[in-house]
Amino acid sequence: MTPGSPDARAVSEVVALYAAAWDEHDEAARRELLERSWADAGVYCDPTAVVEGREALVAHLGAFLASGAGARVVVTSGVDEHDGFLRFAWQVVGADGSLQFEGMDFGELDEDGRLRRIVGFFGPFPPADRAG
Amino acid sequence: MTPGSPDARAVSEVVALYAAAWDEHDEAARRELLERSWADAGVYCDPTAVVEGREALVAHLGAFLASGAGARVVVTSGVDEHDGFLRFAWQVVGADGSLQFEGMDFGELDEDGRLRRIVGFFGPFPPADRAG
Repeated sequence: MTPGSPDARAVSEVVALYAAAWDEHDEAARRELLERSWADAGVYCDPTAVVEGREALVAHLGAFLASGAGARVVVTSGVDEHDGFLRFAWQVVGADGSLQFEGMDFGELDEDGRLRRIVGFFGPFPPADRAG
Repeated sequence: MTPGSPDARAVSEVVALYAAAWDEHDEAARRELLERSWADAGVYCDPTAVVEGREALVAHLGAFLASGAGARVVVTSGVDEHDGFLRFAWQVVGADGSLQFEGMDFGELDEDGRLRRIVGFFGPFPPADRAG
């Protein structure tokens, strides 16, 4: 997919809606953001959680927001997509603007262009000898 | 999955076998490396190619090696895995050791612990305004 093409813009918009849900305290508004960006049965996972289905994700993000003491998720890269798969980088930023941690997400789109999977990884790539 | 655990070592070994196949000019030896690391019907894709099935990947890597003028793929990070998904970083290095390009791969494991999918992305994450 060519950067700047309508399709690339659509992919970026879906990710922007999804990211906005991570910062939306109002449950109904959060659900609406995910209805536009997340497949009904989409699966989210990261090293700490597996969340199956949009409604479960609405609740999971609510728990994140309730526990986060003002922390926000900020997408820090563009969205790179090919073959229905995508990647982007993000940071969690504290209420005071300080970097709390960073990571990267890999996603899959469904036929409607919504996210049917996000796999999140925390931190940069591990060093080459990590599991050696 | 805990770094250094037997399972993490197994995941790293599977990726090492897969990476070795990218540098194995002997077709039979390349096939054997992929038999140990790649699912029969595994799908590889990057921005330039979609390759379905192990035997097609044996041929695809052969074409890469034939065209590469001595370039080699080197895995430059550890392998980070959770929930059957993994990531690692790599570089393509020229015969003279120079960096030609770099990228990152995201993978999925099957029940046997072999790769059933690799999605490759080229370069670092795009800048935040790429598709804006």
